[in-house]
Formats: sequence, structure tokens, C-alpha cells
Amino acid sequence: MTPSTSDTICALATPPGVAGLAIIRVSGPRSFAICDAFFKGSVSAENAHDHTIHFGWWGEGEERVDSVTLMIYRTPRSYTGEDVVEIGCHGGLFVSDRIISDILVGGARLADPGEFTRRAFLNRKLDLVQVEAVADMIHAESHRGAQVAARQLAGGFTHRLTSFRTALLEIVGLLELELDFSEEDVEFVPRDSLRARLLAVDHEIRQTASSAQAASVLRSGFHIAVVGFPNAGKSSLFNALLLRDRAIVSDIPGTTRDYIRESLLMDGYTVHLADTAGLRETADTIELEGIAITRSLIEQADLVIVLNDISLGLHHSDPLVQDVQRRYPDTPIRLVHNKIDVVDTANAPFHPVLACSAKTGAGIDSLRQAILSVVRSSTTNVTDVLVNARQATLLLAISDCLASVIEGLDRHASNDELAVDLRTSVRLLGEITGETWNPDVLDTVFSRFCIGK
Amino acid sequence: MTPSTSDTICALATPPGVAGLAIIRVSGPRSFAICDAFFKGSVSAENAHDHTIHFGWWGEGEERVDSVTLMIYRTPRSYTGEDVVEIGCHGGLFVSDRIISDILVGGARLADPGEFTRRAFLNRKLDLVQVEAVADMIHAESHRGAQVAARQLAGGFTHRLTSFRTALLEIVGLLELELDFSEEDVEFVPRDSLRARLLAVDHEIRQTASSAQAASVLRSGFHIAVVGFPNAGKSSLFNALLLRDRAIVSDIPGTTRDYIRESLLMDGYTVHLADTAGLRETADTIELEGIAITRSLIEQADLVIVLNDISLGLHHSDPLVQDVQRRYPDTPIRLVHNKIDVVDTANAPFHPVLACSAKTGAGIDSLRQAILSVVRSSTTNVTDVLVNARQATLLLAISDCLASVIEGLDRHASNDELAVDLRTSVRLLGEITGETWNPDVLDTVFSRFCIGK
Repeated sequence: MTPSTSDTICALATPPGVAGLAIIRVSGPRSFAICDAFFKGSVSAENAHDHTIHFGWWGEGEERVDSVTLMIYRTPRSYTGEDVVEIGCHGGLFVSDRIISDILVGGARLADPGEFTRRAFLNRKLDLVQVEAVADMIHAESHRGAQVAARQLAGGFTHRLTSFRTALLEIVGLLELELDFSEEDVEFVPRDSLRARLLAVDHEIRQTASSAQAASVLRSGFHIAVVGFPNAGKSSLFNALLLRDRAIVSDIPGTTRDYIRESLLMDGYTVHLADTAGLRETADTIELEGIAITRSLIEQADLVIVLNDISLGLHHSDPLVQDVQRRYPDTPIRLVHNKIDVVDTANAPFHPVLACSAKTGAGIDSLRQAILSVVRSSTTNVTDVLVNARQATLLLAISDCLASVIEGLDRHASNDELAVDLRTSVRLLGEITGETWNPDVLDTVFSRFCIGK
Repeated sequence: MTPSTSDTICALATPPGVAGLAIIRVSGPRSFAICDAFFKGSVSAENAHDHTIHFGWWGEGEERVDSVTLMIYRTPRSYTGEDVVEIGCHGGLFVSDRIISDILVGGARLADPGEFTRRAFLNRKLDLVQVEAVADMIHAESHRGAQVAARQLAGGFTHRLTSFRTALLEIVGLLELELDFSEEDVEFVPRDSLRARLLAVDHEIRQTASSAQAASVLRSGFHIAVVGFPNAGKSSLFNALLLRDRAIVSDIPGTTRDYIRESLLMDGYTVHLADTAGLRETADTIELEGIAITRSLIEQADLVIVLNDISLGLHHSDPLVQDVQRRYPDTPIRLVHNKIDVVDTANAPFHPVLACSAKTGAGIDSLRQAILSVVRSSTTNVTDVLVNARQATLLLAISDCLASVIEGLDRHASNDELAVDLRTSVRLLGEITGETWNPDVLDTVFSRFCIGK
């Protein structure tokens, strides 16, 4: 459902809570008129210049609800492209509440989640990958994620998609040109060269699509599952790792309280450590399979750490490592020996295996570096794009189209037939940026938004 | 300690959290220069006109951290009176964090709690009672509290204090004029008339001071302690009352988990219902005294409701009512009968006692109205001032001074002596508005503030 853009919408744009300042956003043709019914300043919103700020009082008649600043944005030079007023008032629970209810009485309606940005999109202030970058910036769980999203907002991804589009349209153009001269049987470009150009574009498209997993690390953090037999020292390890890093969320029990998750910031990345406590219950027999939560934690993990209590032997946890390896062959595993303080490690052949003492802190820095290097290498190919699932699906669909074009080339299909598939690719590229869109796609994209954005 | 106002300060002005927008506030002589090191727009902050908004990108060099809006306020036309920049960026955890750290690197320092408002006070943009109104607005727990604070911010209280001051200075003037003519033994104003004028001012000052308790209801809410024997139906009553009102906080266990508190909004007032569960443990003997928490809940209460299980008899809880009355003679008490659904109430002589069934909802509306009328009457004399403890103490000290002036008049003290006490009163009035202030007072006032205000 496409929302009408003829009505005026309003919402709190800042988080609710006690703070100095709150901002209420109003957008639509009646923004100025509605605010003028309550605002008393030296100039009315209706008469104020574009991009100016006005101090005054908010209230009905003689009543004074708050001293406010009115920020005036005239169409089309605003976030949404419409007439926009942003009202700065005192923070807290009640003032903004009251001002919003005044504005609703004045004839606006409460904005749906993401509706301001949806209007920005419909008014061509942002394309769809920029819209998605906005959501990524707001929900970023790491500094680097926010950074990459900002580059995407600045147009990095859009430029790359435009270059794909230009390359494909050029090829379509050549094929169609040949079609015009088809009776003369001219070949403007050798098929080999076309094939090479298509393969090159396809390669880049596949590479972009494949960065989706890395992007998810930047968007939602890097997940580590720590497994180990009882008393391997997982809790101590958590504490040792958290001690020197800034913990942003601590001690979040899983929804079922069957595992503990700690999150920490490491060099700008959010790392989630999950303790697979489930193993404790079946310590005698290793039955990973039977424990749904442990299984799903390991499945979701970007890295599994098997923590071995070295006082029980160098190879005590090997069966566990092998079991994880066998069941989850695609997941990187690191064996880490703990409690090196209680054994004689002088001649222990640790390298390249990691060893530490969570108790004394020995080896923790190396462990941290080792983790960080896995995290870093998982995101190296992410530069200006946080490819999400929607985009990756479309990119892979484009790649499938291109494969069928190449296959067509190989069997000397008609230019007509080749052009159809290429046109489909171009249309799919347009779906990524939102040049072509349907309401369902928009609803999905905006479902991630909060009210006021 | 008076902070230096020559440095530039910076803080997040909106609550932290995930939302569309965050605002960072920068104030001080280097605000524009610091922002210009990171802002890329069509105009620099340094060259921008006062009260204008500028769109651009934030970042060091080529890097793009976020698209931002810069709001420019030039001294003295700003909240603090200094050069101020407000930076609007995307909400979330990381973007504002990064921009603030850039500004700190640029040479600003993180603002102390309330420091922006402190500067506004030192630059005479707000007097001290307006400063206190700002804190009251932000921390308001009711619509009416926020409303009254807004009137105080608009100058309501300041005007009233100014009228006291004018009246007292007039009297001082007359006394000192007489002093100049003292050899001629002239009496410009009859002592009776002076006495009457002083009494009138004193009466108003005392009345203002006495509104402090009512103000505290508007500031922190109205506290109701519900006491009753086990199974009187307190929890059901809570639920029945909460059902039709918007619960703003629900099921807050006391710090010691010995009681339950629920808060609800009634007609713009915040009402806190506390369940004095402590009684349960000593149900056989009424030992209010032995239960510290129950005692302190009743002491703090603006109203005590004794809930009686009428199925056990009309007078079952009378000993409880009497005990509360005896121990807390100043606290209003209402006896409320519950469970009228299980007894034959056709001929029950309830009136004027309240009766209800928390289970069926019968009588709950009347109970709500009864509570609301107590709440309303407790705040009727609060119109444009939320007198706080600091102000009340000073007002009572002024009243003491005036009493001593009146006593002096009665024993024909010298004009000199009378003028000294009157001058002290005027100075104390100045302490309320902050015309005369000392750093300790400021520190106390600003201790209630959050960072970014």
C-alpha cells in the first residue's frame, strides 16, 4: 500500500527519555499552518525563510507548554522533500507528548515507522540502497558498520550499481544495433569479447553479493560460540576478555536462559560471545546433536572456540573439536587451552594452538589478537556497501540472468533472445536502487525502521 | 567551583538510543572553528548567518561519517549566550559517538551535567528559578507538573518574587528616608501602615513556601499506600485501577522486594500505588511499628487506603484504620470496602465510605474519582510555581526576617536596625532567583541535571 503523501505526518524523531532536548518532526503540506496555530515567535512558520531557526513559545492561546525552537525546511529542500518543521523542545516524558498531541489535534496524523524516509524515497531524495543505508546507520552495532553504511548513504553502492547498469546497457545496445542490421549479417562486436565483458560484470556482481555475510558481521556483530566441557573456565575467559574491552552489553541470558551471551567492542567491531552451557548437562557423552540451542548457537557462529582445560591433558577436548568439525564443516574452529597457570608449560608444544590462563591473564592478549584477526579477515572485502539479504537475492538473480545470456551466446542464440535476459538484468538492478519498485518491496524495506525516521 | 566559560563544551543533547535523529550540542568560543574542521557543506559554520541550518557531510578528509545538519546560533542569541552549534545526525549508538569524539579531538571537552544551562545562567539568559524550572520540565512525572514548570520557565515565579522585592525595597526606602530626617523626628509612614504592609508580604511569602508539598506532588507524583490484611484484594484492586488508566510503569518491586509499586496516570497526574505487603507477615497482630518499610511507605504517602475484605465483616479492618490514624495523625486515610460482589450489599450503610469489587469492577470508577479529588485538592494552590526545598527554605528564612522586623516595629526599634533585617530579606530573595549566588548553591541546583542540558 502506497501511503498518501498529501497528508501531514508527525512523530518524535529522537529517542524517548529524559534528556535536555527532544525533536518532533512534522512533514507535509500543512506543516507550517499546523505549527503556526500553536507557535508564538517573532515570525510565523508560514512566513519564515527556508533553513532558518526561530525561538518562541508553544501553547494554545495564553498557555505556555514550552519554549521551543522551530526549524523550517521548505519543499523541496528538506529530508522528505516536503515542507518540514522540526520542533526542538525540552526532553522528558511529557512536553514532547503534549506538543505531538497538539499537532495531531491540528490536523496531522502520527507517522508510520519509516514514513519520513519513505516520502524521501518517493520524492527521489534517496534511492533504495541509500534508504537501507539509513536503517543500517541507525541500527549499526559497530563503528565500522556505521562507517560503511555512511559510505553507502553517500552513494558508494549506487555508483557501483550504476556502473553495472551502464556496462549491461552498452551490451544490450550493441546487440540491438546488430539486430537493426540483421539482414546484412553484421557482427559489431566479436562474441568472444561480449562473453568476456559479461563474465567480468558477472564476477563483480557475484563478489558484491558474496559480501552479504561479511556485511552482516558489520551490521549485527561477529558471533563466537565458546564450547567446552564443564569447568573448562568459560566464565573466567569471558571475564578476562571483557575486562580490558568496553563491554556494551553484559550478561544477557538467552531467551531460554540456557546460555549466557556477552557482547564486547573490539577495535570498533561488536563481538558476541555465547557460552554453550548446554554441553554441561551431557558431559559424559558428547551429544551436540541432542541440544538444540547449542546446535543453533554453533550454526550461527562465525567462529567456534573449543576451550580445553589443559590440566586434564593436551588432548582432553579433541573429541569435542572433531565432533564440531564433523558436524559443522564450514565453521572455523579454534582450539584454545586454558589454565596454563596450573601446568608446566615450559616445553608444551602449543604453537600454533592458542593457550592462556583466564585466571592470571597470561595469553589473553594473544587470544584477543587471534579473534580480532578472524573478525577483520571476515570483513575485508566490505568497503562501501553493506549488502543485505534483499540486495544479495537480487544480485544473484542478476547473475543467473547473465549466466543464461552467456549460455545463449555459446549456443548462438538470437540477439533478440539475449537482449531479453539482459533487459531483465537491468530491471533487477533497478529494483535494487528502487528505480523500479513495488509496494511490497517498500513495505519490507521500511519494516526495519522506527517511528520518527 | 565556577567553571571557566572560555572553553568549548560538547555533549549529546538527546537521549541515547535507536531513533531517527540525535542532536549534539557544542557551546563556546571555538564551536564554529571546531565544527568546520569536520563539516563539508556549501557554507562553513564560521561564515554562516545566525539562526540558519546547513546540510552537509561530517568526516575527516575524504571520510564520510554521516550526512548532518548544522544549526548555527551566534552569541548572544543562543541558549547559553555563547556561540552554539547543534549538529543533527542519524540516531543509533555509533554515529553520534563518533562525531562527539571528533569534536573532543578538535579541542572541546565533554560538558558536565547541566553545564549548558549553567552557562545560560552565568550569561543571564535564565535566572535560577527558571533554571530549576528547566530541570522540573525534563524530570516532570505528570502533565500538570510539566505545565506549571513551563509557566515558571516563562517567568511566573520570577515576577512574583520581583513583586515581593519591590514591596520590601519600598519599605526600606521609606525607613532610610526617615533616617535622613531623623533629627527632625519625622514619621513618613505611620508604623501601623508599615506593619500591615509587612504582614501582607509575609503572608504571601508563607503561602508560596507552603505550596512546596503540593509542588512535590506535581514533580514526583502522588503517593498512595494501600494497606490491608492478607487477601483483602490489593493486587486485584491494582489491576482494576490500572486497567482503564494508562500505566506508565508497572510492577516495580521495591528495592528490597518487600513491596510492589505501580504507577498510573490519572487525568495528567502521576499516582504511585504502593502495596504494603509487609502486613502480610504479621497479620495476626497489627504491628505496623515493627515493619520499617510499611512505616516508611505510610510516612511518605499523601493518602493511605485501608482495604477491607467486606466478606469478613464491615468492621474487620477497623483496628487497622485506628492504628494508622493513631500513629500517623497527619496523613489522610480512606477506608475502602472490597469484594462487594460476594456479600449482599442492598442495605449496607456504605456511604460515605467507599465500596467496590475489584473483581467485577463495580465501584472502581467512584474510587478513581475519590482518589482524583484528593490528588486535585492537594495541588489546587499550585499555579505558576513548583516551589522546591531550596526555595521553600529561603522563603521561610525571609519570613523569619520579616517577623523580626515586625517584632522590632512593635518595640520601636531604630530605623537602622529595621533596615538591616529588611535588607537581609531582599538579599535572600536575590538568592532564590540567583541574583546573589555562591558556587555551592549552583552545584546543588545543577546536580539534578543530565549531561547535554
